[in-house]
Amino acid sequence: MAIPSFIEGYGEVRPFTTAFAAPLDAVRTGARIRSQRPGQSKVLPSIREAILACGLKDGATVSFHHHLRNGDDVLRAVMHEIAALGLRDIRVAASSLFPVHAPLVAHIRSGVVTGIVSNYITGPVAEAITAGALPNPAVLQTHGGRARAIEAGELTIDVAFVAAPAADVYGNLNGIDGPSACGPLGYPMVDARHADRVVAITDTLSPHPLTSIDIAQDLVDYVVPVDSIGDASKIVSGTTRVTEDPVGLAIAVLAARVIDAAGLLVDGFSFQTGAGGISLAVAQDVAVIMRDKGVTGSFAAGGVHAGIVAMFRQGLFRTLFDVQCFDLSAVASYREDRGHMAMSASLYANPASKGALVNHLDCMVMGAAEVDISFNVNVTAVNGGTIIGGSGGHADTAAGAKLALVTTRLAAGGAPKIVDAVECVTTPGETIDVVVTEAGVAVNPRRADLRERLAAAGMPLVEITRLRDLASRQTQATARPRIDPQARIVAVVEYRDGTVIDVIRQRGGK
Amino acid sequence: MAIPSFIEGYGEVRPFTTAFAAPLDAVRTGARIRSQRPGQSKVLPSIREAILACGLKDGATVSFHHHLRNGDDVLRAVMHEIAALGLRDIRVAASSLFPVHAPLVAHIRSGVVTGIVSNYITGPVAEAITAGALPNPAVLQTHGGRARAIEAGELTIDVAFVAAPAADVYGNLNGIDGPSACGPLGYPMVDARHADRVVAITDTLSPHPLTSIDIAQDLVDYVVPVDSIGDASKIVSGTTRVTEDPVGLAIAVLAARVIDAAGLLVDGFSFQTGAGGISLAVAQDVAVIMRDKGVTGSFAAGGVHAGIVAMFRQGLFRTLFDVQCFDLSAVASYREDRGHMAMSASLYANPASKGALVNHLDCMVMGAAEVDISFNVNVTAVNGGTIIGGSGGHADTAAGAKLALVTTRLAAGGAPKIVDAVECVTTPGETIDVVVTEAGVAVNPRRADLRERLAAAGMPLVEITRLRDLASRQTQATARPRIDPQARIVAVVEYRDGTVIDVIRQRGGK
Repeated sequence: MAIPSFIEGYGEVRPFTTAFAAPLDAVRTGARIRSQRPGQSKVLPSIREAILACGLKDGATVSFHHHLRNGDDVLRAVMHEIAALGLRDIRVAASSLFPVHAPLVAHIRSGVVTGIVSNYITGPVAEAITAGALPNPAVLQTHGGRARAIEAGELTIDVAFVAAPAADVYGNLNGIDGPSACGPLGYPMVDARHADRVVAITDTLSPHPLTSIDIAQDLVDYVVPVDSIGDASKIVSGTTRVTEDPVGLAIAVLAARVIDAAGLLVDGFSFQTGAGGISLAVAQDVAVIMRDKGVTGSFAAGGVHAGIVAMFRQGLFRTLFDVQCFDLSAVASYREDRGHMAMSASLYANPASKGALVNHLDCMVMGAAEVDISFNVNVTAVNGGTIIGGSGGHADTAAGAKLALVTTRLAAGGAPKIVDAVECVTTPGETIDVVVTEAGVAVNPRRADLRERLAAAGMPLVEITRLRDLASRQTQATARPRIDPQARIVAVVEYRDGTVIDVIRQRGGK
Repeated sequence: MAIPSFIEGYGEVRPFTTAFAAPLDAVRTGARIRSQRPGQSKVLPSIREAILACGLKDGATVSFHHHLRNGDDVLRAVMHEIAALGLRDIRVAASSLFPVHAPLVAHIRSGVVTGIVSNYITGPVAEAITAGALPNPAVLQTHGGRARAIEAGELTIDVAFVAAPAADVYGNLNGIDGPSACGPLGYPMVDARHADRVVAITDTLSPHPLTSIDIAQDLVDYVVPVDSIGDASKIVSGTTRVTEDPVGLAIAVLAARVIDAAGLLVDGFSFQTGAGGISLAVAQDVAVIMRDKGVTGSFAAGGVHAGIVAMFRQGLFRTLFDVQCFDLSAVASYREDRGHMAMSASLYANPASKGALVNHLDCMVMGAAEVDISFNVNVTAVNGGTIIGGSGGHADTAAGAKLALVTTRLAAGGAPKIVDAVECVTTPGETIDVVVTEAGVAVNPRRADLRERLAAAGMPLVEITRLRDLASRQTQATARPRIDPQARIVAVVEYRDGTVIDVIRQRGGK
C-alpha cells in the first residue's frame, strides 16, 4: 500500500527500498551523565520520588523492557505514578507490550500517553491502537531497529525504567537473583546506556554488590525498592509453548530436513528459532539430526527457551547468546551455565553495528501470520488493521541469517496464510529464503542455489503460487476486509534501518 | 610550582583547584561506526593490513592498554608497522608504558611519535620524556581520568589496538583464554567503545564464539592473528611483589591496625590496595584481623593480585571488581570464580560517572614516592624532573575511598620521603586521610573524627611535620635538585577531572 511522504504525528517518512540500502557509516550517540560523588545514595523510597528526581516533564519519553513479559508489573506501577503526578503527552517506548499492560489504555484515553513505540504489541493496548485511540501513530520497530534508533539518537529516552529482578544499592542490576528472575536484561542494556536518566525498580535490593551484573552502576541513576516487580511464572506466556498439533509437528519435521538438506547441519552450525509453537518443535527435530550426525554446532541465539537450553546442555552448541529468556529453564541455565552469555539488543540485531550477532546465524526458524507470493511476511496486522504483534526480531534475523526459514500452515482460522500480498509487510521477501508448509516447500527464486540443493535432496518443492492456490482452496472465499487508503494511519511500521516499510490504517474510519 | 595558563603542544590549561570542583553534569560522547553486513569477515592477515584498512593518517592518535604489563609485545609490533608505513606525528595513548616498550624511544627520535598520553610510565620511555626527546609534552593522566577524557570526547582515538589473549572471528575478545591470558580487559573496554576503529591483535583465534567475553564483537572492526602478543609470565613485574623488608612489614602491620581502629573492619568492608610491596603486605595483615573478628567484607577492587584473591576465596569478600590482574593467580581466579567480575576503567574510577566503584571503597592502601606536610602525594617525578611512574589509580582511589591510607618509610635511598612540598603533586592532600610510617601515624587535620578514633585506639599518632623532621634527620642534607621555572615543560600532570595539577620541566635545560 502506498506510504505517504509525511505522516502527521510521526513526521517525514524515509521509505523502505531494500534490506541493505542504509549507508555503512553510522554514528553511535552519547548520553547525558549526572555524576555521582562519594557518599551519595541512589536508593529512593518510591517510584514517585524517582520520577520527581528525574525531573520528568510533559511530552517526555519513558522506556520499558519486556523481560517479565505478561508477568510485568513495573510499567503499570510507573505509569500510574506518572498519571497521578498530572503529567501529560508522554511517549511510552516499551520494547514489547503484552495483555498485562492493559492499564495503559486508560492513560491513552486520558491523554497521559499520546505516543507508543514498541517492537511487539498484543492485547488491549494493540486493540486500542487499532481502534484509533492513540493521538499519534504507534511506531512499530524491530528489536534491532529499536537498538539502532536509540544508538543513532533518533529515539531519545528521557527516563529509562528498568524492571530489575535484583539490584544493589550502588545500582548494579541483574536478571538472575530474586523471586522475579527473568534472565539477562538484554533490551534495557541499550536504553540504560543512552537515556538521560535511568531508574531501576526492584523487589530484591542487596546492600552488597551483586555477584553477577547485567547492567552496571555507572549506567544507573536511581534504585527504587518495591514489594514486587511482577510474576516471573508468567514469563512463559502466549507464544512460548511447543506445538502439539500433528500438522504443526509434521511441518517441523520437514523444516528440520530442509535445514539439513541445505547443507547447514555440519560442525559450526549456528541457530535461532522464534518462540512460536512450530519453531520450538523444529528445534527438537534439528537436535535429533545433529545428534544422529554427531554434529557440534557453534552457537544458538535469541530469545532462549528450554529447547535450546537442552541442546546446549547436550553439547550441541558451544555457546548461547541470550537477549531474553523465554522460560524459567532458560533463566536457570543463564544463572548456572558458563557459555550461556547475555547480549544486548544492539549486539543481537542492530544493523548499524560493527557486528550484529544475527549476521552470523546459519539458520533462523520463524513463524508467520501471512506470507505472500513475493515471500513478504506479515506478523504485524491482519483483518484490515488489527494489530497482532509485530516484528520483534523477525525482520532482523531474516536479514542476517544464511537460511531464513518460515514455517506456516496453509491456512488457519478459516483464512489462507499464503496470499497474493500480505496485508502488512513486517519482513521483506528478499530476506526470506524458504517457506515450509504441510503441502511442501517453496524456495525464494533469489536462492537458485538453495533450490538446487533441496531438489537434489528430494525435498517436496513447490512454487509459492501453488501454495497460495492450495491455501485459497482450503478456505472460504470471503473477501478480505477493505482498507480505506485515506483512513487515518494508526501505526507506522519501521524496518530495522528506520525506513518505513508499511503503515496500518484505522479500520472503517478516519 | 606555578602552572602557565597555556602550554605549547598541550593547549589551554584548566588549573586544578579542588578535588571535586568539576560540575556534576557531564556528557558521554558517542562513536563513529562502520557497520558490518552479513558475510563480511573481520579477520585480516597482518597488522599492516589492519592499519591500512583503518586509514590511519599522519597526526592520528592510536591507543594501547597495559594488561600484559612488561610482557606486552603488541605496542612494539604495531608501532613498528606504523613506522614502516612512513606515518609521522602519531600520538600514542597507552594506558601505561613499561620498560618493554623501549622501542618507542626510537620512534620518538625519528618523529614517528610526537605525543604520548599515559597514566604510568617507567623505563626508557620515561627517561626519554625526562630528557626532552618528545616534541609535545607528555600528558600524564589517572586511570579514571583517562576513561573520563575518552568518554568526554577530549581524548579522541583514531584506532584502538587491543592486545587480546583470545579472540573469535566475529571480534569477541577475552583475557582468560590462550597462552597470554592476562585477566579482564578493563582499560580497552573504554577505548573500544569510543575509538573510530578498533583492531584486536591476538595469538589465539577461535572460529567459534568465545565462551566468555570482555569486549564484544559490536565494538571491534578487525581481528589480526599473530604468533604471539607477548609473555604473560611478565605480567608480574616491577611493583607487584610483597615486601620482605622488616621495616616495610612493620609499617604494614601498623596500617592494618589503623584500618581496624578507624572502625572499618566490620561486615560490609570494601577494600583496595595498590601494587606496591608494602600495600600487598597490608592486605595480608588485614586478612588476619578480618578472620580473627569474623568479618565478612563486601567487595575488593582494583588491580587484583594473589593476596586479594586469597581473601576472596577465604570468604572475606563477596565479590571482586577487577579492571586488571596483577598476577597469574588473579587471572586464574577471574577465569574460575563466580563473583570475580570484570570492570571497565570507567566503572572503576571515572569521576564523571553515575557510579565509579572507587566511590564505594571503605579503604584504599597506597604507596608514595614523597608525601608532603599538606598530605600531597607524589608518585610521578623526583630528582628534579625524573619521571618514575604516575598516578595510575592513585588519585582516583584516594578521592573515592572513605579512608585513603598512604604507607611509606620516612626515607629511602638516602632521600627523605616526607618533605615540605612534594616535587610533583600526583594526588592532592585533601584526598589523603592518613600516612603510616615506621615512626608513627599522621592524620590529615581535615579528619578530626579519624584522629579521635585512632587516638582512642592507642595508635601512635604524630604530626606530619614531626615525620618530616625525622625523615630529614635520617638523610644527608643534600640540596634537592633545583628546577628551572623557565625550563621547557616535558610532561603535564592532569588530575582525574582533566584539570592540570602539576607540570614536569626539563632538567637543567630548555
